[in-house]
Amino acid sequence: MRATLLYGAGDVRVESVPDPRVMQPTDAIVTVTRACICGSDLWPYQSMERSDSGRRMGHEFIGVVDDVGADVRNVKRGDLVVAPFAWSDGTCIFCRQGLQTSCLHGGFWGGELDGGQGEAVRVPLADGTLVVLPVGRDHALMPSLLTLTDVMGTGHHAALAAKVGPGKIVAVVGDGAVGLCGVIAARRLGAERIILLGRHADRIALAREFGATDIVPERGEEAIARVLELTNGLGAHSVLECVGHGAAMSTALNIARAGGAVGRVGVPQDEAMTGSQPAFYKNVTIAGGPAPVRAYIEELLPDIMEGKIQPGRVFDRSTNLDGVPDGYRAMNEREAIKVMIEF
Amino acid sequence: MRATLLYGAGDVRVESVPDPRVMQPTDAIVTVTRACICGSDLWPYQSMERSDSGRRMGHEFIGVVDDVGADVRNVKRGDLVVAPFAWSDGTCIFCRQGLQTSCLHGGFWGGELDGGQGEAVRVPLADGTLVVLPVGRDHALMPSLLTLTDVMGTGHHAALAAKVGPGKIVAVVGDGAVGLCGVIAARRLGAERIILLGRHADRIALAREFGATDIVPERGEEAIARVLELTNGLGAHSVLECVGHGAAMSTALNIARAGGAVGRVGVPQDEAMTGSQPAFYKNVTIAGGPAPVRAYIEELLPDIMEGKIQPGRVFDRSTNLDGVPDGYRAMNEREAIKVMIEF
Repeated sequence: MRATLLYGAGDVRVESVPDPRVMQPTDAIVTVTRACICGSDLWPYQSMERSDSGRRMGHEFIGVVDDVGADVRNVKRGDLVVAPFAWSDGTCIFCRQGLQTSCLHGGFWGGELDGGQGEAVRVPLADGTLVVLPVGRDHALMPSLLTLTDVMGTGHHAALAAKVGPGKIVAVVGDGAVGLCGVIAARRLGAERIILLGRHADRIALAREFGATDIVPERGEEAIARVLELTNGLGAHSVLECVGHGAAMSTALNIARAGGAVGRVGVPQDEAMTGSQPAFYKNVTIAGGPAPVRAYIEELLPDIMEGKIQPGRVFDRSTNLDGVPDGYRAMNEREAIKVMIEF
Repeated sequence: MRATLLYGAGDVRVESVPDPRVMQPTDAIVTVTRACICGSDLWPYQSMERSDSGRRMGHEFIGVVDDVGADVRNVKRGDLVVAPFAWSDGTCIFCRQGLQTSCLHGGFWGGELDGGQGEAVRVPLADGTLVVLPVGRDHALMPSLLTLTDVMGTGHHAALAAKVGPGKIVAVVGDGAVGLCGVIAARRLGAERIILLGRHADRIALAREFGATDIVPERGEEAIARVLELTNGLGAHSVLECVGHGAAMSTALNIARAGGAVGRVGVPQDEAMTGSQPAFYKNVTIAGGPAPVRAYIEELLPDIMEGKIQPGRVFDRSTNLDGVPDGYRAMNEREAIKVMIEF
């Protein structure tokens, strides 16, 4: 089969790799029908050191079950399934409390495993990981369903971590796909006002349609001053950090009001967090991390099926597998918000 | 009157200063009957740059109301009152939600104001700040009541921020007075197991009486390994960071289990927080800050009056005002846990 590999910064290739096959009785083999490129894929795309063997890419996919191991009970051949960006057993102490990204026996795609940006994937712990979708493979809602693998669940996680609720003033740092899904999540949870910190016209337009009430295009100190101005000098109750740069986190901590919360889902690029001292003096809570999107699929799926939320609109470009390298380039150059891969 | 001033690292003096008098109609003048030295006083004691004018010290005191301004309603001359380490109006948006340390019109002792380590204090916003005690000035419970000004409320705040509750495994980083009160608070809130990270024999003995079930005298990587060993490799659900050094915070973040929480109340000595990346991957919540002890007095006072908790046992030395400089020395050299000042 063919799959996407990254060989170093800027060097994405689609190549032939071995076909996956059932290796453990808990495995399923999934033939991918849709996948996509993630903002977090851009971190290694921008900085990965050269590798001779390459790194398998992609962690967001929907597909059809092609084969299952002897112990698999919850999915069967022919099922259309969605896979969260982390695989998990569904039974360990952390899975039972809905934190599947910390599953004691699970992990993330790539590495020794297949990535999602390829024709097929061996899915370990299939019963815990996969969720059967109630539609056919080419259903019109497929783009929105695909966001259940990561960005919509991640935006929702940021909103929960930031304690969004009715009457709250929410600020979303970052206008990427996760930030835009954070706007959807904040509105869905009843936020009174949603301030988006972003500066790309296409993303801002979409954010407004998703429910953003105010746009702050400034950055750094100017952005902080602007948010404070918009909030009577108090800051936002809930801040969703959807970037991962230290500067974005510092902005997030500075625009949170006393007693407020920052939900961080941008993968932190710095080991140390600056701005944590002012956050202390304000009693600002810092929560979040890799979203346990597996836990959120059941909750978000009905809203997608009923058309209440349309996170699939973050996809503004579609390609086949051969177009994946150019998809990385387009997202990296902010030409595209998020690229969907159709097989 | 006489009061304590710090002129630079290691240079504490008791000197004559102007008598306080009512300056605003919302002021009260309090003649101090008990005060104490705080672990956080040791930060400037260890590092303050030389100052010609000196800095007024102390933020924990109980006293008798001597005079009140025309607008004061809640306290009157002759009342015995306890003062939280922050003064607050009790009516602003933050006070109403129980975050008096962020009061829009309040602040902290010292600076332009009197400190608590002196014979009298002008208390601004007396109605919001002071709480009348239901006992006489020399009641046997006075040491425990004095901890309501800071350390007991701060330990309680750390426990709340760390989401302590029934069945939880709690780790307390630091065996100072706040850490010891954190042990009391954790037990009071129903913790199943309380691991204290500390190494001073006298403090450990007290911690065990307060409810600590395990003691970890190691530091750094060894302490982390030991806590993981004690918790089946998973870490503690709730970690109370009661020191403020970067290394202590890093330990706290590393011993928190996935999905757990760190409640930080040690005043952070570093602008950046190391260890925040691993905390992200584990979805560990970081909360806390200066404790709104004003909000906790009503809750904790009955337990003290009924003898259910005995936080006053953290005082292992008592002195008069003249003995304050030596009290700083003794606490700094870990000769005393916490020094009470009797007037």
